[in-house]
Amino acid sequence: MVNSSVVNTYPLSSYTFGTKEPKMEKDTSVADRLARMKVNYMKEGMRTSVEAILLVQEHNHPHILLLQIGNTFCKLPGGRLKPGENEIEGLKRKLTSKLGANSAALVPDWQIGECVAIWWRPNFETIMYPYCPPHITKPKECKKLFLVHLSEREYFAVPKNLKLLAVPLFELYDNVQRYGPVISTIPQQLSRFQFNMIAT
Amino acid sequence: MVNSSVVNTYPLSSYTFGTKEPKMEKDTSVADRLARMKVNYMKEGMRTSVEAILLVQEHNHPHILLLQIGNTFCKLPGGRLKPGENEIEGLKRKLTSKLGANSAALVPDWQIGECVAIWWRPNFETIMYPYCPPHITKPKECKKLFLVHLSEREYFAVPKNLKLLAVPLFELYDNVQRYGPVISTIPQQLSRFQFNMIAT
Repeated sequence: MVNSSVVNTYPLSSYTFGTKEPKMEKDTSVADRLARMKVNYMKEGMRTSVEAILLVQEHNHPHILLLQIGNTFCKLPGGRLKPGENEIEGLKRKLTSKLGANSAALVPDWQIGECVAIWWRPNFETIMYPYCPPHITKPKECKKLFLVHLSEREYFAVPKNLKLLAVPLFELYDNVQRYGPVISTIPQQLSRFQFNMIAT
Repeated sequence: MVNSSVVNTYPLSSYTFGTKEPKMEKDTSVADRLARMKVNYMKEGMRTSVEAILLVQEHNHPHILLLQIGNTFCKLPGGRLKPGENEIEGLKRKLTSKLGANSAALVPDWQIGECVAIWWRPNFETIMYPYCPPHITKPKECKKLFLVHLSEREYFAVPKNLKLLAVPLFELYDNVQRYGPVISTIPQQLSRFQFNMIAT
C-alpha cells in the first residue's frame, strides 16, 4: 500500500482506452439487488465491498474515473470481496475484471493507496451511512473506498456496455441528486490531499 | 503529530467543564467579517485558519465538541494563524485561547492528529469549496481541519458567552441546513477511522 498526502495526477490524454466484452450487471432492478444481497448475507454474513478512486487531471483540476451504466447511473470501479479475501488483493482483482485488458501484460500494476471513506448499510435497503448507526449490531454491508495511484501511462479496457467518464471534482461537489451520497462527497474526502498535477 | 487510523474516544462524562471570561466575536455581521478579511488580505495575503475536531463518545457513538454562539450558529474551536505561524503550534494556541483554563497547569496537552479536510475560499464571500476551484490563482483563505486526540481526563474552560455542545455524528450527517457545508460533512471525513470507544 502507498501512503502519502501528495498524489501525482497525470493528464487524461496520457491514458489509452480500449473496449472489451460487456460486463452485465447481476441485477436488473434495485429490488433484485437487495434480494440477492439478503440471500448472500444468509450464506456469508456481512458483505464487504471495495471501490477505487482513480484520478486524472484536465486543466489542472482533478477528475475521477466513473463507470456509467445506461444514461444516468454512475459507479466507481470495484465490487464485492469473496469471504475472507484480503481487501487490497480483492480490489486489484475487481479493477482488473472491470478495467484490465484481456492480455495480462497490459493490465495496470494497481497501486492501492489510502482508504478515504467507509460506508455502512444497516439494513437491506439502499441507504448507507458514513458510520455504523447506533443500535445497529449487524450491519449488512461495509463499503470501503480506496485511492488508487495510477502510473503515467496505462491501458484501460472498458466493457462495451459501459462508458468510462472523467468527472471533475467541481461537478461531483454538492451534486447528490446526480451522483448519490457516496460519490458526491468524494471531493471532501480528497480535500486533505495535495495534487501534484503533472503535465506530460 | 499523532497518526493512526484508530482513535480512542472517552465518555463525555470523563471530562470536566468550567467557565471563563467571555470571548467576543470580532465581527457583529457577516459583512463586517468579510470586510475585515479583505483588509487583512491586503496586509498579510491569504488567510490560513486551523480548526479542531475534538471527539468524545456517548452510547458508543462518536460526538464532536462544537462551540455554540447565541441560539443557532455552531463552530469548531480554532482560528486564524499569525503570518508564518506553524499550523500545529497555531492550533494549540487557538485551542488554549478558546478552551484552556486560565491556569496553565490545567490546560490540556493538545495532541494534534491528522488533517482530515482542507477548504478553500476563492473570493471575499462566505462560500468555500473542498478544492481550489479551477482558474482561481489567488484564493483568499485556506482552512484546515485537524483531528485532536483527547486524553482520558481533561478540563475545559468555556467562555461565558459560548456553549460547548457534544453533537453526535448522526445529527451532523446530511444536515447542511443546520451546520453548514464544512461541519455537516465531518462524518464522511471521519468515516475511515476506527473509533475505539473506551468506557471509563
